[in-house]
Amino acid sequence: MGVLHEVLEHNSHWVAERNRPLSKKSSKRVVIFTCMDTRLVDFLEPALGLKRGDAQMIKNAGATLVDPGGGVVRSLVVAIHGLGCEEVFVIGHTDCGMGQIDEEAMRRTMIERGVPSEAIEALHPSLHEWIGGFYNPSANVERVVGLLRTNALIPANVPIHGMMFDPASGQLKLLVEGYTPAGRVSEPPIEAARFR
Amino acid sequence: MGVLHEVLEHNSHWVAERNRPLSKKSSKRVVIFTCMDTRLVDFLEPALGLKRGDAQMIKNAGATLVDPGGGVVRSLVVAIHGLGCEEVFVIGHTDCGMGQIDEEAMRRTMIERGVPSEAIEALHPSLHEWIGGFYNPSANVERVVGLLRTNALIPANVPIHGMMFDPASGQLKLLVEGYTPAGRVSEPPIEAARFR
Repeated sequence: MGVLHEVLEHNSHWVAERNRPLSKKSSKRVVIFTCMDTRLVDFLEPALGLKRGDAQMIKNAGATLVDPGGGVVRSLVVAIHGLGCEEVFVIGHTDCGMGQIDEEAMRRTMIERGVPSEAIEALHPSLHEWIGGFYNPSANVERVVGLLRTNALIPANVPIHGMMFDPASGQLKLLVEGYTPAGRVSEPPIEAARFR
Repeated sequence: MGVLHEVLEHNSHWVAERNRPLSKKSSKRVVIFTCMDTRLVDFLEPALGLKRGDAQMIKNAGATLVDPGGGVVRSLVVAIHGLGCEEVFVIGHTDCGMGQIDEEAMRRTMIERGVPSEAIEALHPSLHEWIGGFYNPSANVERVVGLLRTNALIPANVPIHGMMFDPASGQLKLLVEGYTPAGRVSEPPIEAARFR
């Protein structure tokens, strides 16, 4: 028997699938919080096997959580309680720019590009603290998972996993497995996460 | 003359390009601020012709700017002053979940999933205001562009464009053209952007 009917049947499913309006709710019920890094664009999703419609994605500089009542938690609350997400992935990455912030260089650049120095000082006396730079991206992921785990707005039965991604090779490494209460996978980093 | 040398030369460039470590700085010097929506994953980038390494991407619920001193502006400051970005794209989308927040339904879901009602009340007396829901996604984009345009930390010579994206068709519509001072493209929406 030839492949004619197989092809016709495949095409019929393919057209139906392609024209099906996608739901706002992600099919895998997963929300990912990761970094804005340009090397992750068009790379993290295929490396994780995620397609359109599979997951909500929140991104900021460094996957940092500076304000526990701010936009990241707000977005997670919407994803979990408004869009039915059942798992959270916090994904940091090696060679992250937020681990290499040079506060003085950035201040010089801002002034060179026309930002009034008074505006920098008035708004943010400690620029580095405001930016939320860190020393160690893995420690930052563990810190963010810990902060989210104790946030009363995120139900205890929503697993929060922590991972590191290599933006060159695409390899994903599990740091915190969120299904079990003490799901730490790796040894804690020698250098604790901290904000300069 | 055959194509042998053309193929060999192409392959030599291709291998060099493929193995070149990507810079943290985006090749197009662009930072995009858009929504976490699952239908944009693996869809917005190809619809804009953006590849890995081309742009930084910031994402939250609705591409909303609730706190002008919070994470979105922080990430933009890092992208502009730390990573050399020279243009900002604010991209909202039609059929956005943040335009359809049912505060009471979300409160019920939170309580059903184990969030103590005291925690909701104590942290956020006005849940909807905290979440930052809006009525009109286009008006939200124009509002965000306006707020960013007047932020002293973003240089005046960094254009801030506003766009709407259709998450079904992939069509992009320009709302605010940031190259000229009064670059509004469309008529202002009838219903003003406002937070319930």
